[in-house]
Amino acid sequence: MTHVVIIGAGFAGLEAAKRLRHAPVRITVIDRRNHHLFQPMLYQVATAGLSPAHIAAPIRGILSKSANTEVILAQVNSIDAASRTISTDQGPISFDILILATGATHSYFGHDAWSAVAPGLKTIDDALEIRRRFLLAFEAAERETDDSRRRALMTFIVIGAGPTGVETAGAIAEIARTVIRRDFRHIDTSQARVILIEGQDRVLPSGFPAHLSERARQDLASMGVEVMLNTRVTDIQGGESPHVCIGEERIHAHNIIWAAGVRGSPVAATLHVPTDSAGRVIVNPDLSIPNHPNIFVVGDLAKVINPDGTPVPGVCPAAVQMGRFVADIINTECRSTQSPKPPRPAFSYFDKGALATIGRSRAVASLPFLGSKRIPFTGFIAWALWAGVHVFFLISFRSRIMVMLEWIWAYIFFSRGARLITSGPETKKRE
Amino acid sequence: MTHVVIIGAGFAGLEAAKRLRHAPVRITVIDRRNHHLFQPMLYQVATAGLSPAHIAAPIRGILSKSANTEVILAQVNSIDAASRTISTDQGPISFDILILATGATHSYFGHDAWSAVAPGLKTIDDALEIRRRFLLAFEAAERETDDSRRRALMTFIVIGAGPTGVETAGAIAEIARTVIRRDFRHIDTSQARVILIEGQDRVLPSGFPAHLSERARQDLASMGVEVMLNTRVTDIQGGESPHVCIGEERIHAHNIIWAAGVRGSPVAATLHVPTDSAGRVIVNPDLSIPNHPNIFVVGDLAKVINPDGTPVPGVCPAAVQMGRFVADIINTECRSTQSPKPPRPAFSYFDKGALATIGRSRAVASLPFLGSKRIPFTGFIAWALWAGVHVFFLISFRSRIMVMLEWIWAYIFFSRGARLITSGPETKKRE
Repeated sequence: MTHVVIIGAGFAGLEAAKRLRHAPVRITVIDRRNHHLFQPMLYQVATAGLSPAHIAAPIRGILSKSANTEVILAQVNSIDAASRTISTDQGPISFDILILATGATHSYFGHDAWSAVAPGLKTIDDALEIRRRFLLAFEAAERETDDSRRRALMTFIVIGAGPTGVETAGAIAEIARTVIRRDFRHIDTSQARVILIEGQDRVLPSGFPAHLSERARQDLASMGVEVMLNTRVTDIQGGESPHVCIGEERIHAHNIIWAAGVRGSPVAATLHVPTDSAGRVIVNPDLSIPNHPNIFVVGDLAKVINPDGTPVPGVCPAAVQMGRFVADIINTECRSTQSPKPPRPAFSYFDKGALATIGRSRAVASLPFLGSKRIPFTGFIAWALWAGVHVFFLISFRSRIMVMLEWIWAYIFFSRGARLITSGPETKKRE
Repeated sequence: MTHVVIIGAGFAGLEAAKRLRHAPVRITVIDRRNHHLFQPMLYQVATAGLSPAHIAAPIRGILSKSANTEVILAQVNSIDAASRTISTDQGPISFDILILATGATHSYFGHDAWSAVAPGLKTIDDALEIRRRFLLAFEAAERETDDSRRRALMTFIVIGAGPTGVETAGAIAEIARTVIRRDFRHIDTSQARVILIEGQDRVLPSGFPAHLSERARQDLASMGVEVMLNTRVTDIQGGESPHVCIGEERIHAHNIIWAAGVRGSPVAATLHVPTDSAGRVIVNPDLSIPNHPNIFVVGDLAKVINPDGTPVPGVCPAAVQMGRFVADIINTECRSTQSPKPPRPAFSYFDKGALATIGRSRAVASLPFLGSKRIPFTGFIAWALWAGVHVFFLISFRSRIMVMLEWIWAYIFFSRGARLITSGPETKKRE
């Protein structure tokens, strides 16, 4: 029986696996983590609004009813397209058809040393580390007697104003100004500085029209976030006095979060096929790679051009659509007795719009309506839309209910349930 | 104004702080973690039933309305009773009155090397580490082709059959037999061996009458837990083939959990006062230490004898009662103008009974009724009592609701929401 291997159980890989549940194939899903993660809400774990279990679900559990599917927890090191073999830390795995869906990781544009000072936000461990630093900064500020050091401890810099950057900056400002304000005796947390730095001339530069970017900037400003546009970070330094350099200017801050660049997962390089400058694999219109019709690349790792010439954005709906598209090709070809096989269709992204939340009752949305016309939404309506859509797409019904309850609670009581500092050097047991 | 320092925000310390909220004193609460932990339910975090945020709450949040109270995140190194000074990693702190409530930690009875192989369960980090190992063991078993190694991977040994040991063993058996059974393709998780080892002649040896211990043993056996009584572990070895030695016998197991011994927190030794063999401070009847009426020791760290000669057990209700007792003494003396001060009362533990849960609809309870007579409960009623009491005493109303929902969900669907493996060597990013 044809053996389909899917590497990566993100949105694209999982959708392909689910779609192939009844196909006449044997499926192996490989992931280095045991859980699927709902990444669009990861910033809420980083900012102590949700627990990891709210937005992640065990891959085995999700696929337990797929009798033709096996799950392996393993780290993939390389792929040999010619011999159809994958090398993993659990030994080699061979395939007939491969769906590569390992997504993207942070890119520091060549400054990898920055990653220790300015962590990015891609995994649960990243989120818990950012949460730990963020909560410890207020603890340290409470004890600090030197004014300039205290100011640096209470300065938060978010680099990159895409949805993750905007959402993280908004959440930090909101917490400092409301949730924890009464918790401290020596500092006024509402005096915390939150700075959002963006290289382009507006926040949310892709996927949103300019007037919604402007609205988001105003919303952020009204919450006290300092938005710096057309600004490029030239250096980030750690140590005793961590800071961000913008040309000659230095901003001292103990909390720096990287939400700027992404690059394709490094395993793609082992395929030896052309990639774009961000390391994404340039795929054929059917999402296969050149000369290997049995190897598909989907999700954030794929560089795809729509039939109309526009690029497909690296967003969840695109990943899901790619996973479904490839699964349908495999399903059709496995069931087909035609020879030669019928020509494959070309992938085309169906844009469902863009949403970003900024804070309590504040969000922007740009949704398609009647064909290509897009309707902008702002304020409470956009925020409710954002919440509804995100809750709806959570992987499990249980999470949907629990997250909704957490949000309702937080909305009413201005509180955050997950303000826990776990692990990390400062809290390890010493006995 | 009199400065009261409370070290440790467990049940005893927090109760004292809350009780002194309106007292004419200045209070400083010191803890090395930013959260209070509801330890009796920690095993549910270890066995993936609950998330850390369900059973922990930030200390600052709990005490934010206590205007006379300040919270400091610090590690206490030593206490100088004569100069009334505490040395911490954040500098020295002086006090007029000290309440020491740092609790207990694991004791491996002199075999500290065992701790790496057989972790104990006292902190959130402990619980997440046990969860990680427990879930990874099934992952490794799924891939393992050698029979004896696979058997070792699917063998779980819990050492110590107090409430934590009984509850942990029961939860593991339940998960293996129901929750994850359909998730694997190559192993039958219901074949997992769960072994509970106890040195005394019955499970739940303290706080419960013998017939309830027997009922708990039967319940455990019916769930497939092998209970070994009158059995002493003589060695624990790690490495490639981890195992527990019982005299000449070896049991190979990749998951060993220590729930046997506790000893007083090591900071107590710096007081240079008499302790018992478990390192607990032998206090006066008013819970102060010899020669220092301004230093109290409360909670699990105190070795207290009731006026009737019975020892006070190391359980939550005792800790809460001690915290309250000491706070009342301080409150009275601070407001009193009498000189010399009136004699202090002697602490006496009011026993509210004992409860332990074994699994779905199974528990044992021994509750006092009409004075000293105790009523035993078993089965569903005891289980409902356990759930009710534990939810009621959770620190925040939010947690109460969320935990109740998680439990109802788990009860109906036989599922567990928090089956996530986070951090640890096998899941760290490698790029």
